[in-house]
Amino acid sequence: MTNLQLTILGSGSAVPLPRRSPTSQFLTLSGRHFLLDCGEGTQTKLRQHKIGFGRINHIFISHLHGDHFFGLVPLLTTLHLLDRQKEMHLYGPPELEQAVQSLLDSTGSRLRFPLIYHVAQPKAPTLVYEDEALWVKAIPLEHGMPCWGYHFQEKPRPRKMRKEAIDRLGIPVAEIRQIKQGAAFTDLAGTTHANETLTDDPAPALSYAYCTDTAPLGPYLKEHIGPVDLLYHEATFTETHRDRAQQTTHCTARQAAEGAQTMGAQKLLLGHFSIRYDDLAPLEEEARAVYPPSYLAREDQVFELSRKDGKLYL
Amino acid sequence: MTNLQLTILGSGSAVPLPRRSPTSQFLTLSGRHFLLDCGEGTQTKLRQHKIGFGRINHIFISHLHGDHFFGLVPLLTTLHLLDRQKEMHLYGPPELEQAVQSLLDSTGSRLRFPLIYHVAQPKAPTLVYEDEALWVKAIPLEHGMPCWGYHFQEKPRPRKMRKEAIDRLGIPVAEIRQIKQGAAFTDLAGTTHANETLTDDPAPALSYAYCTDTAPLGPYLKEHIGPVDLLYHEATFTETHRDRAQQTTHCTARQAAEGAQTMGAQKLLLGHFSIRYDDLAPLEEEARAVYPPSYLAREDQVFELSRKDGKLYL
Repeated sequence: MTNLQLTILGSGSAVPLPRRSPTSQFLTLSGRHFLLDCGEGTQTKLRQHKIGFGRINHIFISHLHGDHFFGLVPLLTTLHLLDRQKEMHLYGPPELEQAVQSLLDSTGSRLRFPLIYHVAQPKAPTLVYEDEALWVKAIPLEHGMPCWGYHFQEKPRPRKMRKEAIDRLGIPVAEIRQIKQGAAFTDLAGTTHANETLTDDPAPALSYAYCTDTAPLGPYLKEHIGPVDLLYHEATFTETHRDRAQQTTHCTARQAAEGAQTMGAQKLLLGHFSIRYDDLAPLEEEARAVYPPSYLAREDQVFELSRKDGKLYL
Repeated sequence: MTNLQLTILGSGSAVPLPRRSPTSQFLTLSGRHFLLDCGEGTQTKLRQHKIGFGRINHIFISHLHGDHFFGLVPLLTTLHLLDRQKEMHLYGPPELEQAVQSLLDSTGSRLRFPLIYHVAQPKAPTLVYEDEALWVKAIPLEHGMPCWGYHFQEKPRPRKMRKEAIDRLGIPVAEIRQIKQGAAFTDLAGTTHANETLTDDPAPALSYAYCTDTAPLGPYLKEHIGPVDLLYHEATFTETHRDRAQQTTHCTARQAAEGAQTMGAQKLLLGHFSIRYDDLAPLEEEARAVYPPSYLAREDQVFELSRKDGKLYL
């Protein structure tokens, strides 16, 4: 069963190319949809992937460098023109509201739907989203300007009730909720049935961490995020340009892999590639030399993550 | 000889589609290059057309609706990252500087090249650019917000000196400039040679008017621009949606054609198409019924305009 689906709408870094758009990802987890960053042209990439705009209700912005948010106001303006009424939730830096509002003011636009801002705090992880199925925390990273990663964590699901047991034992509807939480069931004859005979294990909870842009963080990601199932980590450069990575507070593919290993991420996706690399294979090789379950997050790829019989599949 | 080349980088209107980008055109006239409007994704379209960023030194913005300028700051930011040093000239509304500066401020960017603003005046045509070969005037249009068309006019060229005449009559270099202006030449023997025997007609001066977005303007374009060789005029709707055109201060294809006919434009290009039209042929038909030399300015088309033996070719 697929619980997590991730579409790479843009794999590039600061300078866009025709086949390497600036950063944006569309994440589906527990049936919820999240847009992560919104570089220039994201609305067109969403259309190319036939992702309906009605599914865009929560947009997370890592930071205010243009390649991560220049597509946001254009997308909001289009939604307005398409007569959207539903509120839009925006997650990001405290300065996001001002940035969005001044650009809307410049164009003389007043959106016909409300924008609701959820502000990430600069000093410590902030719980910015929570519902019955999952939560999202904003994790401060280290970049030239305030910048956050986002940690998506599914909550444990209720156990799966066996329909056969309901029929066989005549379990009343009123008791099912408790049984799904792990309770045993005592029938009218006074016999107690252990929960394991009534239910099956639920699909395991999955977790995803989105970390771009950042300098290497050492044990920080382990302390503040922990061993996620899937980590997306920027890998702007190869080790050949390690100095350049340091100057621009970015990472090499090797540093991204070291980060994934240290935090105990099950799988690693690499992205935010510099325009200097036509061939991306060396970035993947460099990461795999340190941490084998590393993969390129290439433009337009769709990743599906699932766990079955205790094993994780990407 | 081609004097004018026009590349349609975007043919769409407010809502972009994967194959219909927001407005932008790249114009070459008298060997000068001009970018007209800069909707979201223009930098990527320039790359697709292999138009080097070094040729972008003059950008004209019609108005501050997003589909005409959301790509401007992203383009400027990319030029900065690519280490541009050369100044950039921006032409447009008085509010353009504030709009550009606040977005740059949001991203924490300070460009390493100067921006030089040339402000269009709201009440009357403004000469915003002039050099020895051509001039450009900003012409106020009628739209929901202050908006300008741009009128590009080549100046008459000097006459073409016949090399054969220079050799035959031993014309000194010092006299050539005057002869190119139409003067006769008197040789050492005292014989005067009429200018027509020394020179040929130069390539005729061409003119282009870029008019988007606007409500129908009646005789206004004739009064303020006059009979240009090529007119680009918005044609957002067909007559079927004439009411919608009126509500949104746009034009139908028929109204664009009437405008072209009234002003005496030699050729008409139609653009800024609403997303409601998959098939654009009806817009062209509608315009041609009024004014036959009307053409669709389709996405990615390159138009060349030349005059030969008194005839204009597109």
